[in-house]
Amino acid sequence: MNTAATNTAAKGRLIAFEGGEAAGKTTQARLLAERIGAQLSFEPGATELGNHIRSLVLNSSGPQPTARAEALLIAADRAQHVAEVIRPTLDGGTHVVTDRYIGSSLAYQGIARQLGTTEILAISEFATAGLTCDLTVLLEVDSHTALQRQAAPSDRIEAEGNGFHHRVMQGYRTLAAQDPKHWVVINGMGNVDEVAEAVYVAVKERLNV
Amino acid sequence: MNTAATNTAAKGRLIAFEGGEAAGKTTQARLLAERIGAQLSFEPGATELGNHIRSLVLNSSGPQPTARAEALLIAADRAQHVAEVIRPTLDGGTHVVTDRYIGSSLAYQGIARQLGTTEILAISEFATAGLTCDLTVLLEVDSHTALQRQAAPSDRIEAEGNGFHHRVMQGYRTLAAQDPKHWVVINGMGNVDEVAEAVYVAVKERLNV
Repeated sequence: MNTAATNTAAKGRLIAFEGGEAAGKTTQARLLAERIGAQLSFEPGATELGNHIRSLVLNSSGPQPTARAEALLIAADRAQHVAEVIRPTLDGGTHVVTDRYIGSSLAYQGIARQLGTTEILAISEFATAGLTCDLTVLLEVDSHTALQRQAAPSDRIEAEGNGFHHRVMQGYRTLAAQDPKHWVVINGMGNVDEVAEAVYVAVKERLNV
Repeated sequence: MNTAATNTAAKGRLIAFEGGEAAGKTTQARLLAERIGAQLSFEPGATELGNHIRSLVLNSSGPQPTARAEALLIAADRAQHVAEVIRPTLDGGTHVVTDRYIGSSLAYQGIARQLGTTEILAISEFATAGLTCDLTVLLEVDSHTALQRQAAPSDRIEAEGNGFHHRVMQGYRTLAAQDPKHWVVINGMGNVDEVAEAVYVAVKERLNV
């Protein structure tokens, strides 16, 4: 039998940061992307179409989407994000670090808005044509710290009440516990460099990147 | 056993018009709504949020949604339409006639864009929380007539090629044939009054409204 070399180039890995508001996702995603030479991205709004969708979802003063419309708009943003940014970058052999991905939809719309994780997962699978994360990093801070870090709520979802954000965090913990192979929980309470180091060690151990 | 009268008020019925571009849907939906005292509506764009979504989906000059993003945007519009307009109107006992509904997603995105009718149906069921049509009226005109009636394509989907619109019409015929209980095919080739009469007779016979 001929063991010919395959033509498959090494594909990039997809790493998502998840967590509540003010958990430090944006900073930590940027630091990890710099350290491993990944392309940094985010949801919602990384594409031109997505930027329009983002304003429909997050604008506090415009028309208010129902929970189902919100979930579908977020999924539409993700579909465009995967097709325009994530998939081509991974196929080109570069890693992608994204600030939010499917985990956000499961925690916010599936659990906190009680639309159901099975339904939300099915919609995300359709949106992404089945492209899942290699690793999801959940940054956990206690609600007191989150409150201290956060300025006044700047968008419609940030402005939800404490009960909502509590359900989001509970939801994230459940998701991480149910799928430990693809989720890692990092204590986000330390200073930026300490957290960045803990993230890097975890990613290195899990994905060897 | 006590056969107490129920408190359930008579609910309105939901009737959708479907068909390719220039099949006469908008005119016929209006005429039927007037005749049976129904609220007239349409997709996409009947709500304030939906109007924004409509421009993202149909604008030829803005960012071009992928097929999956398009399907999810249309579903988001439908979710808002059902929650704000259709469901409250039906619950109030008034019929609703809508120019396009789930059938459009199945024919355009499911079949013509080849995303699959099973996936598109699941997304529409999520969007509508399971609210299906009592009757879908498919207006059929031959492509020569459609071409004669239609001015220059005015939006991104109208501007698709003949092959696309042919797949849409084939898709509609298949959907109607698969579910004759909920679909009726009306020949849309006659003059406006003839078609309106045929529509009315069919709706009366099927729904007794």
